Amino acid sequence: MNKVVIFPGSFDPITKGHENIIKRAIPLFDSIVVAVGENSEKKSYFKLKDRIQWIEEVLSDLPTVTVETYSGLTVDFCKQMKAKYLLRGLRTSADFEFERSIGQINKRLYPDIETVFMLAFPEFTPITSSIVRDVHRHKGNILDFIPTSIHSYFK
Amino acid sequence: MNKVVIFPGSFDPITKGHENIIKRAIPLFDSIVVAVGENSEKKSYFKLKDRIQWIEEVLSDLPTVTVETYSGLTVDFCKQMKAKYLLRGLRTSADFEFERSIGQINKRLYPDIETVFMLAFPEFTPITSSIVRDVHRHKGNILDFIPTSIHSYFK
Amino acid sequence: MNKVVIFPGSFDPITKGHENIIKRAIPLFDSIVVAVGENSEKKSYFKLKDRIQWIEEVLSDLPTVTVETYSGLTVDFCKQMKAKYLLRGLRTSADFEFERSIGQINKRLYPDIETVFMLAFPEFTPITSSIVRDVHRHKGNILDFIPTSIHSYFK
Amino acid sequence: MNKVVIFPGSFDPITKGHENIIKRAIPLFDSIVVAVGENSEKKSYFKLKDRIQWIEEVLSDLPTVTVETYSGLTVDFCKQMKAKYLLRGLRTSADFEFERSIGQINKRLYPDIETVFMLAFPEFTPITSSIVRDVHRHKGNILDFIPTSIHSYFK
Amino acid sequence: MNKVVIFPGSFDPITKGHENIIKRAIPLFDSIVVAVGENSEKKSYFKLKDRIQWIEEVLSDLPTVTVETYSGLTVDFCKQMKAKYLLRGLRTSADFEFERSIGQINKRLYPDIETVFMLAFPEFTPITSSIVRDVHRHKGNILDFIPTSIHSYFK
Amino acid sequence: MNKVVIFPGSFDPITKGHENIIKRAIPLFDSIVVAVGENSEKKSYFKLKDRIQWIEEVLSDLPTVTVETYSGLTVDFCKQMKAKYLLRGLRTSADFEFERSIGQINKRLYPDIETVFMLAFPEFTPITSSIVRDVHRHKGNILDFIPTSIHSYFK
Repeated sequence: MNKVVIFPGSFDPITKGHENIIKRAIPLFDSIVVAVGENSEKKSYFKLKDRIQWIEEVLSDLPTVTVETYSGLTVDFCKQMKAKYLLRGLRTSADFEFERSIGQINKRLYPDIETVFMLAFPEFTPITSSIVRDVHRHKGNILDFIPTSIHSYFK
Repeated sequence: MNKVVIFPGSFDPITKGHENIIKRAIPLFDSIVVAVGENSEKKSYFKLKDRIQWIEEVLSDLPTVTVETYSGLTVDFCKQMKAKYLLRGLRTSADFEFERSIGQINKRLYPDIETVFMLAFPEFTPITSSIVRDVHRHKGNILDFIPTSIHSYFK
Repeated sequence: MNKVVIFPGSFDPITKGHENIIKRAIPLFDSIVVAVGENSEKKSYFKLKDRIQWIEEVLSDLPTVTVETYSGLTVDFCKQMKAKYLLRGLRTSADFEFERSIGQINKRLYPDIETVFMLAFPEFTPITSSIVRDVHRHKGNILDFIPTSIHSYFK
Repeated sequence: MNKVVIFPGSFDPITKGHENIIKRAIPLFDSIVVAVGENSEKKSYFKLKDRIQWIEEVLSDLPTVTVETYSGLTVDFCKQMKAKYLLRGLRTSADFEFERSIGQINKRLYPDIETVFMLAFPEFTPITSSIVRDVHRHKGNILDFIPTSIHSYFK
Repeated sequence: MNKVVIFPGSFDPITKGHENIIKRAIPLFDSIVVAVGENSEKKSYFKLKDRIQWIEEVLSDLPTVTVETYSGLTVDFCKQMKAKYLLRGLRTSADFEFERSIGQINKRLYPDIETVFMLAFPEFTPITSSIVRDVHRHKGNILDFIPTSIHSYFK
Repeated sequence: MNKVVIFPGSFDPITKGHENIIKRAIPLFDSIVVAVGENSEKKSYFKLKDRIQWIEEVLSDLPTVTVETYSGLTVDFCKQMKAKYLLRGLRTSADFEFERSIGQINKRLYPDIETVFMLAFPEFTPITSSIVRDVHRHKGNILDFIPTSIHSYFK
């Protein structure tokens, strides 16, 4: 059985934390799909086109990982991709409570799906896309928080 | 003394979790008022008229429970209804921290009020109105999360 | 139906927080039984006889509240007392996570039981029997943390 | 070395909790700057001019404390004010998780900065500016939650 | 590469929650080792021999899952078993904070190890071995909390 | 006024996290007393004599920091040392809930005391004395978790 996992998010923008989770999950799965949700409700800070491009840059040396966009329910995208696994990183207990509700609801909507969690490394624990956006909006230096391979876009 | 309890919320929409808390609270109180707050700040997802109708459907066999709408402070509505109790369900520790602040502030605004908490059943713990709306918005099936008596509205 | 509630604990010793919860629960129930668990596993700090006496002192003006000891499961004691309710105070989110497990397990062991939670007042939030014992053990003054009616025992 | 600390926030409005933290921090620092962030993203509830005036009223007898406004990153404002410390009050564990991320990110952006935390007094734990705004919006009485010296503005 | 995962614990006793995590992890790994830690510090409630026997009963139809005992560090046992993965179930945010510390320390002790977390099902969330022992100690019925295949041992 | 701060703990053993908090607190206080509590209730893992020696090694280049032992209440030791401040590091929200209770109780026992909290660095967040003891007990390598200056004692 081919093990496909979906790593869903808005990646607004992709962070060093995301990159770290993706790389550590590679040995566990046959293929990983980084799935950028197009949320019609919430306006993103960075353009979809840019977010995708940055992810592609990060994935360029990772042959089993691809990027896709999706709208609609995450579990419907999983069915479409024939994926039985969702991947999520956990940073804090606030994260956990949120992820638990989502994960348990997804299981009811699609009983074949299994959410697999990995721990953020301690040094990436404080990094969230939301904080990175906030630093960027106030003209701060975000290079310490985003993958090295996309630093050139922010200099 | 007549024991009246207010069960406040936006019920956008009423969930199986809400229904469960209401039914379990019936033996403890003489009457229960499900109080739908009209929040001028936040736009609701479902129309007030529909939310009320669904609650009425759920309460149709529960003679001691009624539904009302209110605006203004919850404690002012309690005074108006001569209610000394507020009822809230608790699902997670994030819920709890939020409810604690609200409950302690309500006590200062109206020292006669007492908030009584009951635990969500484990199977209803992941269900929130916010997640139900999200599933509905993305064309998912919400029947597993809302009271059986209102399923016909969502088929 | 007579509404009997059990307020279980080790009360080692009873605190101002316990007293406050008991008094605020009086209007909601026909009778309250303060139930001191005799836990053969854990050695108590204060003697059972003293703990009971202090509770009796606190309850002396509260006609609907009595004190009992019990061993065995709390829900078995509830059945024996024909009580359908358990009462617990909530201070912190750590409290909550613990109480949620116990409450949900009790519901499975005895589906007729309902645990009702009330919030600690902010000024009593930091007080636990465990901290009171610790202060007492180190010869500190515990009068600020225990009911006024039992101050004379600790002077 | 002159110890300057920045106490950043939106103070929308200043609460009794803020006032209490400021006063307790005075002996620890040579000067305290209450720094009102002008957040172009989020519209405030009270006008900046009013928020500043209320803070000035509260600080009128506190010679080592001043009020300033700033936009941009908090750590950039710290550099500009030659401040090596940030001051934050902690109320709940939800607060803590949020503050930890911000504090650790600020340390990476400006390694010389040190965030110092003090505990809210129990009686101020439920008070947040957000709840105060909510009570005010619904025509409730907020006097119990804001500094005595600014009560006259809200009568 | 053969994917071996260690599921460590004291299993004092194995619960329905443990059984559920094991079964859901089977498709993800080539083999699962249920590893019963012999902790010389803490006395177990049930005998090691019994705990092993019950686990074997539960695993009897699961060809890729075996049971082992170990003493010493969990990561040393992983090395010995040539396992690159640890499996843990997550129930509550208190669980999470504890598991995060252990998981991050294990990663430092053995950088090749990866801890993979799966969510408890809502109905198993309140069940812990500790609560099961407590119910058993007080002569309560634990059948609702332990795997069906070992019910006969507790009747 | 001379600013003296007490950094209390059992330091069983001192960790890299403790060392980091001490060093970062130096600029804020005139003198820091690392106070090793002799807890007659709980047996320590390492001998008091060794724990003191390791702390002295760590402090050898830090002229404003000294080590003392104490028994009895922490606030009584503060009075004896004429210290108005307590210093504590915060790692997780579980830490925080515990520290909040202790800090608020200390304030009631001795209103002049102020507890000042600093954040653990992300890389030290998973390190606790308890986990270090556990690794040591199982013959694991603890060098990554304790100050460099005491590595020679554990080789």
